[in-house]
Amino acid sequence: MVFSHPIRVYWEDTDAGGIVFYANYLKFMERARTEWLRALGIEQQRLREQTGGLFVVSETRLKYHRPARLDDQLLVTAQLQESGSASLIIEQRVLLADMAGSQDEAAPSAAAARALLCEGSIRIGWVNAATLRPARLPAHVLQSLTPCAPDTRHPIRGLSTVKP
Amino acid sequence: MVFSHPIRVYWEDTDAGGIVFYANYLKFMERARTEWLRALGIEQQRLREQTGGLFVVSETRLKYHRPARLDDQLLVTAQLQESGSASLIIEQRVLLADMAGSQDEAAPSAAAARALLCEGSIRIGWVNAATLRPARLPAHVLQSLTPCAPDTRHPIRGLSTVKP
Amino acid sequence: MVFSHPIRVYWEDTDAGGIVFYANYLKFMERARTEWLRALGIEQQRLREQTGGLFVVSETRLKYHRPARLDDQLLVTAQLQESGSASLIIEQRVLLADMAGSQDEAAPSAAAARALLCEGSIRIGWVNAATLRPARLPAHVLQSLTPCAPDTRHPIRGLSTVKP
Amino acid sequence: MVFSHPIRVYWEDTDAGGIVFYANYLKFMERARTEWLRALGIEQQRLREQTGGLFVVSETRLKYHRPARLDDQLLVTAQLQESGSASLIIEQRVLLADMAGSQDEAAPSAAAARALLCEGSIRIGWVNAATLRPARLPAHVLQSLTPCAPDTRHPIRGLSTVKP
Repeated sequence: MVFSHPIRVYWEDTDAGGIVFYANYLKFMERARTEWLRALGIEQQRLREQTGGLFVVSETRLKYHRPARLDDQLLVTAQLQESGSASLIIEQRVLLADMAGSQDEAAPSAAAARALLCEGSIRIGWVNAATLRPARLPAHVLQSLTPCAPDTRHPIRGLSTVKP
Repeated sequence: MVFSHPIRVYWEDTDAGGIVFYANYLKFMERARTEWLRALGIEQQRLREQTGGLFVVSETRLKYHRPARLDDQLLVTAQLQESGSASLIIEQRVLLADMAGSQDEAAPSAAAARALLCEGSIRIGWVNAATLRPARLPAHVLQSLTPCAPDTRHPIRGLSTVKP
Repeated sequence: MVFSHPIRVYWEDTDAGGIVFYANYLKFMERARTEWLRALGIEQQRLREQTGGLFVVSETRLKYHRPARLDDQLLVTAQLQESGSASLIIEQRVLLADMAGSQDEAAPSAAAARALLCEGSIRIGWVNAATLRPARLPAHVLQSLTPCAPDTRHPIRGLSTVKP
Repeated sequence: MVFSHPIRVYWEDTDAGGIVFYANYLKFMERARTEWLRALGIEQQRLREQTGGLFVVSETRLKYHRPARLDDQLLVTAQLQESGSASLIIEQRVLLADMAGSQDEAAPSAAAARALLCEGSIRIGWVNAATLRPARLPAHVLQSLTPCAPDTRHPIRGLSTVKP
């Protein structure tokens, strides 16, 4: 079961091309990652106060398939792809909600393909908040993430393998 | 002589209406205030490290006259309107650069009116960075600002008088 | 009954002061206005296709009382203050959700005061989308808004009266 | 000679981690691409009016090496990596200006490494502005870009080869 978070497209997200500005998909993905962590019991503000560390993004890869527009209702997914002692790789998709939920029994995969607006891999590291130097992920964070880890025998698309 | 800072309109600034999104004029004004302070010798990052304080905005009033569009070259002004021991009022204008500089000898004021896209007053306070509680502006900051202060006998348009 | 819309504070909303960047409250307010219009049956993208017009902001006045921070859950209200043939004035508040809902029976007004982070008035006009020139609000939009109009005998705080 | 564009880090660019928010590097890169195109005689707003088309990003790959902070002065480069009939690949770097220009004769490459904050590849396509369907790049745009094209025998790092 993949975590997903609903996001509505507002004026602030669009640009003069009439579509969502390309950098804003990274905002949408960050919101979904935050809610995914929250669903796992991880509040980042509190985590920083407790551990003195914070997550930082070290690598992103995005493919933009179809544009989102004003008033569109989106679903943004977050799924742990790989976790090491110092970094995570999270796979994310931005879907058009109406199409993602449509019942096209004759051609479900065609409907799914039309719903996929953007997809990507985000690599996240853990750093000391004061020095911004890489550090080991707190043990309880890694534990919270483990039950969600997918079968890691499958090769990771998008980002090269982490060797922490 | 009013301080002005050039700003170009990029895709990120526009929305699906084909014009600059209304909140982004506050970004432009903040950039111009930062460069105005820098021109007076005040670097905010260093100031925070030295004093433990930072500026926060406590009130804004903006009028939007004409929209800016992609590729427009703007001039954003910043002028101290009033300074107290705990807050400043800064008057700012966003002008279309081409029209602001045009030589319309027959009707200079008409040209100036066409160039004015947005104008407003921004009240800024000084707070302790750790507690975010109001504090007195550092003396050397007030001194840096003083030579630029306009005649304070004139009433302040836009914001009610500060009574710190 | 005042319309309110929940908004969560994410990393994108904050700045290096550790608080929400002042321009972003205008984003939050725009989101709440959009959802308020949607609740009244007005979808802006569709409205533009049907009428060739769109809303633009012509004036904003904001007071910032307390800062919002990462992970805060907010409520943003939108209430019609005045409607004319060519513009609307909407009063908006940004509240900290936990405090807004707290049961402080001994001092309810003190709790409400702590919950109020930012408040303001937004004047909105209607323009032709192609020319961006002011135009009359479509009749059915005005009709949709009327049932929500407050008692207009009260003076409008924040913005001077519209004389369309 | 690689095109570079100076960018200053303002409050709007930072987040509560005290560093530039990761999506904002895509804004910086878009600004630099826009100025690079302008330097080649290509104004996007005018181009759209003349041709009915516009550029859209179809793929991005970024690596974040070191964070930028408030008040940092950056240099953002843009260099054509490959051009096809329907898309371009542009390689971009975000450098810390002070370090990029420092004279470290003993270890110039070490200084250059410290200056590199972020780097990436951006694939850009050309679409009909009304339908957003892919289209062929206007001939005069391709011609403007050609003199800058690097030796295309070298493999492209970052993005897989375009097969338009």
